[in-house]
Amino acid sequence: MLSFKDYTMKFSETLIPTLREVPGDAVIVSHRLMLRAAMLRKLSNGLFAYLPLGLRSFRKVERIIREEMDAIGALEIKPTVVVPGELWKESGRWDSMGEALLRVKNRLGSDFVVSPTAEEAFTALVRDELSSYRQLPLSLYQINTKYRDEVRPRYGVMRGREFTMKDAYSFHTNEESLDETYQKMGRAYRRIFKRCGLTVIPVQADSGAMGGTGSEEFMVESEIGDNTLLLCKAGDYAANVEKAGCKPDYSAPASPEAAKAAAASIPALEKIDTPHVRTIEELCAFLKTDAKKFIKTLIYKAVNVELDLSSAPGCSKLQRRKPAPDAPEVYPEAFFAVAIRGDLDVNEVKLAAIIKAAEVMLAADTDVERITGAPVGFAGPVGLSTVPVIADETVTAMNDAVAGALAKDLHYTHVAYGRDFGPWLVTDLRTVVAGDRCPVCGGELYEKKGNELGHIFKLGYKYTTSMKVSYLDENGKSHTPTMGCYGIGLDRTLASAIEEHHDDQGILWPITLAPFHVIIIPIKYDGAVKAVTDQIVAELEQKGIEILLDDRNERPGVKFNDADLIGIPYRVVVGDKNLAGDTPKVEVKARAEKENRLVEVSKAADELAALVFSALAELNR
Amino acid sequence: MLSFKDYTMKFSETLIPTLREVPGDAVIVSHRLMLRAAMLRKLSNGLFAYLPLGLRSFRKVERIIREEMDAIGALEIKPTVVVPGELWKESGRWDSMGEALLRVKNRLGSDFVVSPTAEEAFTALVRDELSSYRQLPLSLYQINTKYRDEVRPRYGVMRGREFTMKDAYSFHTNEESLDETYQKMGRAYRRIFKRCGLTVIPVQADSGAMGGTGSEEFMVESEIGDNTLLLCKAGDYAANVEKAGCKPDYSAPASPEAAKAAAASIPALEKIDTPHVRTIEELCAFLKTDAKKFIKTLIYKAVNVELDLSSAPGCSKLQRRKPAPDAPEVYPEAFFAVAIRGDLDVNEVKLAAIIKAAEVMLAADTDVERITGAPVGFAGPVGLSTVPVIADETVTAMNDAVAGALAKDLHYTHVAYGRDFGPWLVTDLRTVVAGDRCPVCGGELYEKKGNELGHIFKLGYKYTTSMKVSYLDENGKSHTPTMGCYGIGLDRTLASAIEEHHDDQGILWPITLAPFHVIIIPIKYDGAVKAVTDQIVAELEQKGIEILLDDRNERPGVKFNDADLIGIPYRVVVGDKNLAGDTPKVEVKARAEKENRLVEVSKAADELAALVFSALAELNR
Repeated sequence: MLSFKDYTMKFSETLIPTLREVPGDAVIVSHRLMLRAAMLRKLSNGLFAYLPLGLRSFRKVERIIREEMDAIGALEIKPTVVVPGELWKESGRWDSMGEALLRVKNRLGSDFVVSPTAEEAFTALVRDELSSYRQLPLSLYQINTKYRDEVRPRYGVMRGREFTMKDAYSFHTNEESLDETYQKMGRAYRRIFKRCGLTVIPVQADSGAMGGTGSEEFMVESEIGDNTLLLCKAGDYAANVEKAGCKPDYSAPASPEAAKAAAASIPALEKIDTPHVRTIEELCAFLKTDAKKFIKTLIYKAVNVELDLSSAPGCSKLQRRKPAPDAPEVYPEAFFAVAIRGDLDVNEVKLAAIIKAAEVMLAADTDVERITGAPVGFAGPVGLSTVPVIADETVTAMNDAVAGALAKDLHYTHVAYGRDFGPWLVTDLRTVVAGDRCPVCGGELYEKKGNELGHIFKLGYKYTTSMKVSYLDENGKSHTPTMGCYGIGLDRTLASAIEEHHDDQGILWPITLAPFHVIIIPIKYDGAVKAVTDQIVAELEQKGIEILLDDRNERPGVKFNDADLIGIPYRVVVGDKNLAGDTPKVEVKARAEKENRLVEVSKAADELAALVFSALAELNR
Repeated sequence: MLSFKDYTMKFSETLIPTLREVPGDAVIVSHRLMLRAAMLRKLSNGLFAYLPLGLRSFRKVERIIREEMDAIGALEIKPTVVVPGELWKESGRWDSMGEALLRVKNRLGSDFVVSPTAEEAFTALVRDELSSYRQLPLSLYQINTKYRDEVRPRYGVMRGREFTMKDAYSFHTNEESLDETYQKMGRAYRRIFKRCGLTVIPVQADSGAMGGTGSEEFMVESEIGDNTLLLCKAGDYAANVEKAGCKPDYSAPASPEAAKAAAASIPALEKIDTPHVRTIEELCAFLKTDAKKFIKTLIYKAVNVELDLSSAPGCSKLQRRKPAPDAPEVYPEAFFAVAIRGDLDVNEVKLAAIIKAAEVMLAADTDVERITGAPVGFAGPVGLSTVPVIADETVTAMNDAVAGALAKDLHYTHVAYGRDFGPWLVTDLRTVVAGDRCPVCGGELYEKKGNELGHIFKLGYKYTTSMKVSYLDENGKSHTPTMGCYGIGLDRTLASAIEEHHDDQGILWPITLAPFHVIIIPIKYDGAVKAVTDQIVAELEQKGIEILLDDRNERPGVKFNDADLIGIPYRVVVGDKNLAGDTPKVEVKARAEKENRLVEVSKAADELAALVFSALAELNR
């Protein structure tokens, strides 16, 4: 058999063009260090090439993920990166996915997409193979190239256009089975990130129409994170702001009747002139009250609404349609009024989830005027019958409030929920912010910015229904399976490990991701120094330790700086001075430590191996 | 540490949906067997997903290639699959590459390509990193997704649209260094195919403008091969028809003077009427002569000709231009007359190479009429001064020939080379066919159809010049490096191994590519049979043998058929009958053999391991 270069690489025989300076667009530390340590080079905006050193670490992330997926029985397959547009038309995502989907027409005019995720391809494969309940549950995954046509790619591989993702998809006969795999995946994800040396924050996330606990994101704290997380100081709760709830900071009446009774003591509804008042701040100043007494009412337009609106005010003429032949029936467009306490913001993700809409957005001024019969700024729930009113739960506690009166320069005062208006739907729509109360313990919530590394998600029947997947149960009856999906971004995981583990000199690799375990630096690779170096290398190789041998004819300072920059966990320096004498020695230093120790040459390999294996065991435990 | 499922997989826990029947479009055996053995499923025309079994074999091909590339010091990197169109515009291939290049415009209107090969990306990376001659030679490679927009993808992964290719690129200061790496690659390729159990035919191939021995293709014989190979029966010569030469089957004069002298005895040129004669056959019948006496003259149009034509007849007005700012100067369009012995065909690949044209094609009738001053069918070299005449070497031996007379219904007879015309250029342009003589030994050549699995190629300065790559030599002088490229198609290699190793029952995997080394089939996975099965599995795992355990509750016949179909090299059957008695036994059978043997349970694992390791050693030697 060959002796492969898995273990030892000579610096002079590989390609590690370290840099002192990096381009100004590299603003975050992982991007800067990946360029400086020659892990990565830019090909174009959002497109990067891994150089040999970066690829070694990348492969280690890949292997950890593969091992953990295999360990829970997920089966690896390899679909194509370019997939037929037809499948995306079947699922409906050809239309619903925005411009981030890279669409291609081939020479014959057929449509294709460069996969951003692969629900369609996996569902299509399973559709063809699935016949019996006996084949379920089934978990499949790939680790493959993905593409997202980011408008503004940045932060290196943290937000690139092309990236590598592990995406898994599971298929089940029932909710319990889905939940079991979902929990297994959650545990596997925790192990994966732990093995990568990463501190992740698992947070509850928006689960769209699925609701419940069907979506968990694995976040790392990051100044440039594009997610806002709400965390309980006592550690009882963590959620993406899109999903976060909080303990009520008001006393809601137990029922609409109770609300009505409570309103008995409130003066009757009164219409007042509020000339030249446009904003809530102006209104509060004008009425000498505060925003908490105001019922803010916003008109939303929603696209492709699945919720049944047949009984909703103003919706009797709405027609349901199918956006695609196999898609579920939806209202292509519907308008809603959303009422919420004036000091709060509407969480549009929650709103879209509750009405099962593909998208929600504030209505155009002309639509607001048509719906409210007044200029923008005078919407209110009282007497509004042209659209369904959805009230945030905070509104149920408001029994002497101010609200727009559906006419120019007019507001109502003494508005009482239950007495003066009854919304079509009451639900939680508030955007939780730092200072709100933990829904579990009531303690204070605080905010962090986070980057998402992984996501596990109960998809439910969305794809299996639209793409017509079925299996026969034990009685020969046909059913649609339910489905979960589970993703991890490899490049982001790697970059995040650098974000968490570095100092001013460079990277401090967790040993599991280090391109090599040990770097050995002969002061001059020649004579006795070379002999000892080669001896230690041979002994380490025997033990399965991966070694970078810096055989370059460079000044020691240059070699030390490069070793620190590329962040190999353990460094051995072999020099004439320490070899002289009865017990020749070498310097051993952990990258994370300041001081080095002198170790006898004869004991160096054993000691290094012990360090490496205990560090590996610690992370892989 | 975890116990990973690298070694043993239970049939019931993986996904191997074997098939009895396959779609009619699966016409070649590897395509049929890959579908039947559940290695592969079709996603769309030319797009396939590897299922778990296929992916295991695919990864083994990948690993063999990676090991052999690493062993010769090539460095693995990972550029993106989608690459900037800008780079392709720099190299000129954005224009010169036809419709097989999948071009994409992103949301911002920028051009990209889904890589079919990666000369541009690698050259761009090296351009940025290269400064000194000390960094050379440098060999880089990737094993990555490629896309070729085939009009008619077919034969499964043998000619798919998306595929995986190992592509390597090397950079050098001089020709000798390039040749050294080229030879190393050639040896590595021979080892790769040997380790994959493949019989390849290395053939000389067209090397475009490079000439010489700068291009070798690694072919497997195949009925559906899209290459024609010319092979010497004595084994002295093998070449792609595009490149193949042969020993002259004529006596050429030593020099133009000798030709002229030989022509002294030939009657003078004579113009004769040849009414209603259009084809060579008609002419031969009319003149009662044979095609070997006829000088066939064809008018070619060539596109982007690099060869200097300033001294060529009819070319004085041609202007050189640059098709792209950094591309070399070319004549955008030029016409040539090609004269060849009447029984032979012009090899257009040779023609394009000799005039350094991007493309050559027969001229349109109107061009032929303009150039020859006669209708199509009367072209001839005598008196033709409107375009350069290029003569095949066979023409130099023709001294009493027939040729068109550049006028309707007129031919010349007694045409003598050197006396009646002198071509601008004489070169080898014939298409060699079976029956021609080996250029090395003079023995007979025969033809085979072949499929290309790999190609090594001296690129020269094409990309480094157009993309402006340079380095400084030891005197600080700037030079352009020369370059080689080296590709292997992984999917094709895998499919070809099946083409070469199968029988009526299924695949006969070379052990190096087998998804598992051993399949163990308990007649019923229960009781004593299960206990013995688990014991043998545990013993084999200890030894590093990969095992598929068919734990399904199926009839033995079904399990045996599946085992034969998926082609695992060694089969162990554990049944009650053979376990009874003092020395319990199991059946052991090699897939390639008809008969099984009874082996004592206590010796089974040792014996199987010996078989597996000796088979591995044989191929990996």
